[in-house]
Amino acid sequence: MKQSKITLDNVYRAAHRIKEVVRKTDMIEARAIFPDDNIFMKTENLQTTGSFKVRGAYFKISQLTEEEKARGVVACSAGNHAQGVALACNHLGIDSTIFMPESAPISKIEATRSYGSKIILAGDNYDDSYEAALQYISEHDKIFIHPFDDEEVIVGQATIGLEILEQMPDVDIIMVPVGGGGLLGGISYVIKSLKPECQVIGVEAAKAPSMGVSLEEDKIIRISSQDTFADGIAVKQPGPTTFELAKQYVDQMLTVSEDEIAYALLSLMEKQKLVCEGAGAVAFAAVVFNKIDFKNKKVCVLLSGGNIDVNILSRVIQRGLLVSGRNTELSISLTDKPGQLQAVATAIAELGANVTEVNYNPGGENTAIDSCVLNLKLETKNIEHIRMIETVLQEKGFNLLSKEEARGCFAES
Amino acid sequence: MKQSKITLDNVYRAAHRIKEVVRKTDMIEARAIFPDDNIFMKTENLQTTGSFKVRGAYFKISQLTEEEKARGVVACSAGNHAQGVALACNHLGIDSTIFMPESAPISKIEATRSYGSKIILAGDNYDDSYEAALQYISEHDKIFIHPFDDEEVIVGQATIGLEILEQMPDVDIIMVPVGGGGLLGGISYVIKSLKPECQVIGVEAAKAPSMGVSLEEDKIIRISSQDTFADGIAVKQPGPTTFELAKQYVDQMLTVSEDEIAYALLSLMEKQKLVCEGAGAVAFAAVVFNKIDFKNKKVCVLLSGGNIDVNILSRVIQRGLLVSGRNTELSISLTDKPGQLQAVATAIAELGANVTEVNYNPGGENTAIDSCVLNLKLETKNIEHIRMIETVLQEKGFNLLSKEEARGCFAES
Repeated sequence: MKQSKITLDNVYRAAHRIKEVVRKTDMIEARAIFPDDNIFMKTENLQTTGSFKVRGAYFKISQLTEEEKARGVVACSAGNHAQGVALACNHLGIDSTIFMPESAPISKIEATRSYGSKIILAGDNYDDSYEAALQYISEHDKIFIHPFDDEEVIVGQATIGLEILEQMPDVDIIMVPVGGGGLLGGISYVIKSLKPECQVIGVEAAKAPSMGVSLEEDKIIRISSQDTFADGIAVKQPGPTTFELAKQYVDQMLTVSEDEIAYALLSLMEKQKLVCEGAGAVAFAAVVFNKIDFKNKKVCVLLSGGNIDVNILSRVIQRGLLVSGRNTELSISLTDKPGQLQAVATAIAELGANVTEVNYNPGGENTAIDSCVLNLKLETKNIEHIRMIETVLQEKGFNLLSKEEARGCFAES
Repeated sequence: MKQSKITLDNVYRAAHRIKEVVRKTDMIEARAIFPDDNIFMKTENLQTTGSFKVRGAYFKISQLTEEEKARGVVACSAGNHAQGVALACNHLGIDSTIFMPESAPISKIEATRSYGSKIILAGDNYDDSYEAALQYISEHDKIFIHPFDDEEVIVGQATIGLEILEQMPDVDIIMVPVGGGGLLGGISYVIKSLKPECQVIGVEAAKAPSMGVSLEEDKIIRISSQDTFADGIAVKQPGPTTFELAKQYVDQMLTVSEDEIAYALLSLMEKQKLVCEGAGAVAFAAVVFNKIDFKNKKVCVLLSGGNIDVNILSRVIQRGLLVSGRNTELSISLTDKPGQLQAVATAIAELGANVTEVNYNPGGENTAIDSCVLNLKLETKNIEHIRMIETVLQEKGFNLLSKEEARGCFAES
């Protein structure tokens, strides 16, 4: 029987080896979001290349034989693994070719290219790109670096477990984002080996719950859809190695919704000044939305990566502001007589909201012939604040339109 | 003659005292932006309360006599100083009242209120709010905590200088954002006392250059406009104490434009995963735009704060993407015949740009009667990429409209 490479011995060796390029990222208390609790963030979004992936990729590639290094490596990834492999190869002087789906964001392609890798855009999605990579390997005799289901990659990710125990020796719960399960497998192995009473909880996007479903069914399940904006963890199925590790060492699996992830991203940016990608924030989202009982517990939440396309980030901010009641839109049907606009504006100002956009249109099919529709975008405090504004306006006799009614009007106008 | 409180002795005492609430923030190499240089970021945007201001506020307030503490304190600030004073008072059990201009963003008001301070919104701008605060103090016998021109506040900010020398003993140049000059005064005092060969350079927003202008004229100058989105450093004039410190210890002053600040904010978010406010990023902007010679130098850039309103952040992202050529808009006048739209789309796809928005309208006054206007929003790589796309489209015979021409069309449609 083949000896597993996942040993504490190897994790300590990896921790030493990866120091050449990997930062020991800071552990920061999330005081601005949780002033009365003990929630700490292990900030791997501030890692070199913007995610933890460089740990596994660097250790794996550093362990190749001279003959293998001379052949060169190939990886397939739309994001973080690509950058990890590219940086490692750059540093170790190894030829690398990265396959990325044609739909990969320009920013990620350019970031990977900047480390000197050859980029091949192939296929509409990850699976097609992966097929093209395998084809290429068979023709060119290259070494494939798997993004998660590889013992040495897992050992590299496991080094985070050592750092957590050093930075936070009294940790009670560790929350880990889960895609293919390499990070979860590595960290849970280290924690259960060194501090078994510490809970390790994995968190997936509800739209890509392959590890959770697999553990429930007690066999590897391939899910069909992984349509989440947490693209870094949109994985169809765990690997055999990561599945076995999770089965043996992980205490619990949770999921979070897209809106919960968006809200968490916004909170992290606004309150903690940290940019996270969707995949990097799922564990944090689980804490924000009280999916675990963290009263009187010391919790370490892994922020696993920050490589989010800024165009998407901008949309996430807008979405998060809406979800949290910080922005809202109101449509009001006004009779077409002087002073109405002013009356609404005064009422809103008195309630402490800021008007950021105004549209004033003739009414559509759902409104009387002598009425206009006033559409307002407001900056508000929270959902209760919005409800209060709506109530006060209605008490003052204004006719607030539902979203459907408002849409009827504007389709017309 | 009164003895100055700005002594190394006091700075070391402050460093010890503020540990109760202040984090020793990480020093992070900006490798993603400067792979071949030695540019390090002192991340005070990750400080408790989101800015360095808590250092000075906490030390100052901790040094009040018991009698003064019992009277309670007042501060006036639209942002970071407010939160620093509020947190300090909360921690030290002191009653605090914070005056903020009525235009202060809701997020900053709520953040300050969350520390338990009484908030009084007064005046349209800082000056009016400050007048109201002075009036209040005279009526209520409170202690005023000045945001920068106070020796103990300056001593508190100076603790950053000690941390920089500990984290980066071989530092050659330190770049510091400048508003009223408390941070600059404190850091430059420590550095010139302990490592005089290290250069200290202050950076202001070009739209609020009060310290630079004052140093040039060798007297305190009051500037009229401070219309910058780096609102945290929009100060009309330095104080007598900070002016004298800068005169004695600072090597050079620089300024950066609004677009340079916006670009720096975007780079920090996208590449280094750090959220900065405009004021917090001016020093970094000066490095990004090569305003100093940093070849073979070890440079520490202070990121002084991260408290930016997310609505503004969202606009900064959009602006930064346009300035850096990452987003663009094209308007093309097409004759109204089949296949034209497809031809443009194909050409753009072949050039590696992503189409993010399409508008296809009948032509306006500047176009022929049988033509349509195609308005495209594109995700692009950089300015050169945009120029290349424009050139190729023109070579293929498409009629690109200037912004003015396009506006004519859309006003009509």
